[in-house]
Amino acid sequence: MRLRNKPWAKEKLAQYPQYAVGNPAEHKGKWNEVFGNDNPIHIEVGTGKGQFLLGMAKQNPNINYLGIELYESVIVSALDRIIEAEVPNFKLLSVDAKDLTEYFAKGDVERVYLNFSDPWPKVRHAKRRLTYKTFLNIYEQILIDGGEIHFKTDNQGLFEYSLMSFSEYGLLLKYVSLDLHASDFEGNIMTEYEEKFSQKGSRIYRSEVKYMNEK
Amino acid sequence: MRLRNKPWAKEKLAQYPQYAVGNPAEHKGKWNEVFGNDNPIHIEVGTGKGQFLLGMAKQNPNINYLGIELYESVIVSALDRIIEAEVPNFKLLSVDAKDLTEYFAKGDVERVYLNFSDPWPKVRHAKRRLTYKTFLNIYEQILIDGGEIHFKTDNQGLFEYSLMSFSEYGLLLKYVSLDLHASDFEGNIMTEYEEKFSQKGSRIYRSEVKYMNEK
Repeated sequence: MRLRNKPWAKEKLAQYPQYAVGNPAEHKGKWNEVFGNDNPIHIEVGTGKGQFLLGMAKQNPNINYLGIELYESVIVSALDRIIEAEVPNFKLLSVDAKDLTEYFAKGDVERVYLNFSDPWPKVRHAKRRLTYKTFLNIYEQILIDGGEIHFKTDNQGLFEYSLMSFSEYGLLLKYVSLDLHASDFEGNIMTEYEEKFSQKGSRIYRSEVKYMNEK
Repeated sequence: MRLRNKPWAKEKLAQYPQYAVGNPAEHKGKWNEVFGNDNPIHIEVGTGKGQFLLGMAKQNPNINYLGIELYESVIVSALDRIIEAEVPNFKLLSVDAKDLTEYFAKGDVERVYLNFSDPWPKVRHAKRRLTYKTFLNIYEQILIDGGEIHFKTDNQGLFEYSLMSFSEYGLLLKYVSLDLHASDFEGNIMTEYEEKFSQKGSRIYRSEVKYMNEK
């Protein structure tokens, strides 16, 4: 995604603490207080402009959604969407995925979504892929037992890599589609990127994997 | 594959015991005697007319190949190829894959190839797919520890199913390509079916999975 510098983004995020969570470390182990209920929390790592989670939040009012996005200049667009839509179960957090264990305790999160993550195609950048083993370990440290990752991408190389990485980590491959939009999967919410590239004919790959209590 | 009745097939196979192995149960645990050396044995389940294993046998003279095919009327075409090519490391066996443990002991086989297996697309026929758990268990009973299955197909549904079935069984996904002919995989030997359907533009999917000693 092309990043435009928006020096006012940080300030705007601070103006909407009910949507853009500040001081996230304070909520570690008690994120239910942030949402004011005990519904499960699903996070999207790399939530961009928030179209996916906004659709999910409307579709599933009994799930709390938290969009994680490093770039404030991007997440501020998601903030605009939440302000307009007034959904109570979608909040934002501008932090680095590498640091998630600083903000979440084991069991805080029921599900992690990864959508069209940066493929980092060069082998020497494999460690930066959000499905690399160190990230799978980070997610494990914040997910419930039996928690899941739901992952979609149009990048064939990243999908191939991720299937192998999931397997090597010992995750159970619960679901896989090699052509999501031609499949019978119901309720798919498209990301901005997905809308654009599927119109151009790109296949969308999707998988669901589960952390097994006993490996 | 369309089957033509060839009543003479059984007789012809019997005329070439050096290529078409009779009385396979007698060789259980000592297949090296059949090949006259201690090279590893790789089998293809559903070897059809044998183009794949003939190519592999020529490419890898230090591996012994055994083509398993239920239908004598089909495997007799593979026999014709072996007779013509005079390869010493490719033999045939006309038995049902369900019965492999009658003919092979644990460790007799180093690798199983599955190429363009019947997809059995109806859910009620899932048990017939050669990547169903009962078949994965049969292969485990005849493979060495750490043995592998190398699987390719153009059938998207079968590939999706198989990835999930491998994962559920606890196999390690070592390699996956979602477009084999556009990948950098070297040394691919095409089956008859693969030649025909890849020319028509079908994608070929390929995976390698490994039985882990410790699950």
